[in-house]
Amino acid sequence: MQLYTKRGDYGNTNLIGQRTIPKDNIRVETYGTLDELNSLIGVIVSQMDEEDNRLKSELIDLQHLLFDCGTDLATFDGERPYKVKKEAVEWIEEQIDVYAEEPPIIEKFVIPGGHPVASLLHLARTVTRRAEHLIVTLNREEKINTVVAIFVNRLSDYLFALARIVNHRKGVAEPLYERGGKVFH
Amino acid sequence: MQLYTKRGDYGNTNLIGQRTIPKDNIRVETYGTLDELNSLIGVIVSQMDEEDNRLKSELIDLQHLLFDCGTDLATFDGERPYKVKKEAVEWIEEQIDVYAEEPPIIEKFVIPGGHPVASLLHLARTVTRRAEHLIVTLNREEKINTVVAIFVNRLSDYLFALARIVNHRKGVAEPLYERGGKVFH
Amino acid sequence: MQLYTKRGDYGNTNLIGQRTIPKDNIRVETYGTLDELNSLIGVIVSQMDEEDNRLKSELIDLQHLLFDCGTDLATFDGERPYKVKKEAVEWIEEQIDVYAEEPPIIEKFVIPGGHPVASLLHLARTVTRRAEHLIVTLNREEKINTVVAIFVNRLSDYLFALARIVNHRKGVAEPLYERGGKVFH
Ligand code: B12
Ligand code: B12
Ligand code: B12
Ligand SMILES: C[C@H]1O[C@@H](n2cnc3c(N)ncnc32)[C@H](O)[C@@H]1O
Ligand SMILES: C[C@H]1O[C@@H](n2cnc3c(N)ncnc32)[C@H](O)[C@@H]1O
Ligand SMILES: C[C@H]1O[C@@H](n2cnc3c(N)ncnc32)[C@H](O)[C@@H]1O
Ligand SMILES: [Mg+2]
Ligand SMILES: [Mg+2]
Ligand SMILES: [Mg+2]
Repeated sequence: MQLYTKRGDYGNTNLIGQRTIPKDNIRVETYGTLDELNSLIGVIVSQMDEEDNRLKSELIDLQHLLFDCGTDLATFDGERPYKVKKEAVEWIEEQIDVYAEEPPIIEKFVIPGGHPVASLLHLARTVTRRAEHLIVTLNREEKINTVVAIFVNRLSDYLFALARIVNHRKGVAEPLYERGGKVFH
Repeated sequence: MQLYTKRGDYGNTNLIGQRTIPKDNIRVETYGTLDELNSLIGVIVSQMDEEDNRLKSELIDLQHLLFDCGTDLATFDGERPYKVKKEAVEWIEEQIDVYAEEPPIIEKFVIPGGHPVASLLHLARTVTRRAEHLIVTLNREEKINTVVAIFVNRLSDYLFALARIVNHRKGVAEPLYERGGKVFH
Repeated sequence: MQLYTKRGDYGNTNLIGQRTIPKDNIRVETYGTLDELNSLIGVIVSQMDEEDNRLKSELIDLQHLLFDCGTDLATFDGERPYKVKKEAVEWIEEQIDVYAEEPPIIEKFVIPGGHPVASLLHLARTVTRRAEHLIVTLNREEKINTVVAIFVNRLSDYLFALARIVNHRKGVAEPLYERGGKVFH
């Protein structure tokens, strides 16, 4: 495989369907950030052990979904049907509902950290939110699959729930932000 | 706890005090990046072992301070007193002064790396500087607590000092940038 | 060493040659992102073991090259000769050509992940592309060493090849994106 094609050396690149755009185009930056998030999920999976097998395979399913999101965002509107359907949102909501019940109820912000995997899940949560900003900007400027925007909004809550689950299951203490008031209700 | 509220699905969100703004607003992006930094500090803490207990609890104190910074940046000016006071800057300066004396004096840039914890501290140093850019932009456009800007500037120097301390204490070699001249004086 | 100088407290900083610019200047953000990438490479090196010694020292050479790139981008045009020469691009292309041959040929996108080191290499690949966006913007606005732009474009392909090599050598399975068609040829 000839990996590099030198076509991108002068600052341009292509979308799906061969449309040429500059590499600092907001659309490219947006699916590039989903690629960053996807890679960070890969790092998380690589740190999980055997007993986490169910969560592990769920995170790999999520990686495929992130590719689906990336494909939709890399497609200039109308050129082909979108891959991410509202079923993806329903699925992630169900997962959040289940996971949010498992650890003890909290009222204050959690200090991100704890178990190494939980800590990385918090980090992924914040990278998800960085991607979300870009999606919001992109959506203002161009037509996109808005299901992707909703899915990514839900995704950061999912990763928060998962971080708490991991700490809870591993028995790692979860310190709360002590100088803050009640924020969760 | 009902984690997701769906209120953010159409690209808007709230500051402290319920003011509604778009999610790609520079203010949200700025405290979002502090959240990313805070999570990365959580990852670092999760990698430290027993013998690092003092640094570990110092980093957790820092996480609370980062929440204070976030609260101040999420507050629309004038709506409530700021949390971060100049005492926080004085505290971090004292820590830097102590830490900067411990490892050997260098004149050239350090290749970021060494011990896993030191390497992650370098990474956190650069994420701190990414947050600092955003604070500088935000401060040009809106009124903010400028103590936060100074604290975050100092914070990247603190993390640099800490990275060097960790390598020094663990006896890990610290390669210097060989094709560069004298930069530290 | 007096690490902090307080000179940057009010949002300005210096380039090589003492020119004063705001910290949120695109040039500063660009070499700051190369510093982030450089630190992430440091994290990767810190996770490699003895048997990876050759790749390890190659990545440290790369860290020096990233400093050369940073020096060039921190230099206002014309004030001194550039450090990064086309030989750096030739070197990295040779490495990619060798590495791209070793693992099995694939036609579909790879799910980023696998071995911890491979996973981090994928993450570094995406941070490289984030830096590349900024270089493209900077290059539109100011004169820079365009060899740096080409080198950084090649660098993300190099890191992709290296991620695959590591998984292949460690015998870790490499799942492919199942809902996508043939993309590599
Ligand atoms: C978008 C894109 C990316 C995105 C992927 C976005 C995403 N999905 O998340 C990102 C940024 C991640 C990416 C990364 C990379 N990319 Co890229 N990428 C592209 C691009 C522009 C389009 C490829 C694509 O997504 N096609 C869509 C594919 C995945 O699927 P599909 O068509 O939907 O496939 C089938 C089914 O889905 C079905 N289908 C179609 N519509 C629908 C709808 C529904 C509802 C369903 C169910 C099914 C369906 O029909 C198809 C038949 O099988 C191409 C260039 C081009 N214009 O083709 C380069 C390209 C493939 N990339 C390239 C490279 C080099 C890379 C990287 C190695 C770069 C790097 N150094 O990081 C990495 C590799 C990443 C990896 N993990 O393997 C090169 C490959 C060169 C070569 N040797 O051939 C290309 C050709 C660009 C180039 N240089 O010319 N890339
Ligand atoms: C800002 C904000 C954030 C910031 C926090 C900023 C920071 N401090 O660093 C960030 C971006 C980190 C964040 C993250 C999240 N958030 Co949030 N966040 C908010 C927001 C807008 C304000 C909350 C806040 O900071 N309140 C201030 C609190 C912490 O403290 P306080 O008032 O200062 O508290 C006391 C004392 O400090 C004292 N006091 C007051 N002034 C002063 C001054 C001084 C000097 C002193 C000493 C004391 C003092 O008086 C108070 C009495 O106890 C609310 C929505 C809203 N408008 O309320 C959502 C909100 C709380 N977040 C929400 C969510 C879901 C999250 C996340 C899970 C999102 C995600 N997926 O990542 C994470 C959780 C993070 C975590 N680690 O736990 C939801 C919760 C929904 C629910 N179930 O109830 C809310 C309600 C938003 C929503 N969707 O409607 N969030
Ligand atoms: C650019 C810069 C950076 C860049 C480095 C860019 C890069 N190369 O990747 C980045 C962003 C990484 C950086 C980081 C930091 N920096 Co800085 N940085 C600077 C700055 C502006 C220029 C330094 C520089 O790169 N000089 C060029 C040096 C490296 O090499 P050179 O001149 O090319 O050297 C020789 C040879 O290369 C040869 N040469 C010249 N031209 C050519 C051409 C060719 C072709 C060849 C082969 C050779 C050659 O001649 C020279 C003779 O020896 C200075 C301030 C200033 N204006 O000097 C601050 C400065 C050095 N930084 C400073 C600080 C504090 C830091 C950080 C600790 C900040 C932080 N908290 O993260 C870190 C430390 C990073 C580390 N790993 O050690 C402080 C140091 C304060 C002190 N105590 O003295 C300074 C002085 C700024 C200040 N506050 O006033 N920095
Ligand atoms: C929990 C709080 O986080 C903020 N918020 C909402 N969306 C994002 C995002 N994508 N990135 C960072 N912060 C966000 C809002 O202020 C919200 O109320
Ligand atoms: C050490 C050097 O790093 C640059 N510098 C100063 N502040 C930042 C920041 N927030 N991010 C990246 N680089 C910065 C300046 O050029 C300074 O001199
Ligand atoms: C492989 C695909 O990735 C996209 N692409 C090209 N350069 C970048 C970059 N710096 N960052 C993110 N995506 C990029 C283009 O769409 C290319 O075809
Ligand atoms: Mg949200
Ligand atoms: Mg500084
Ligand atoms: Mg490329």
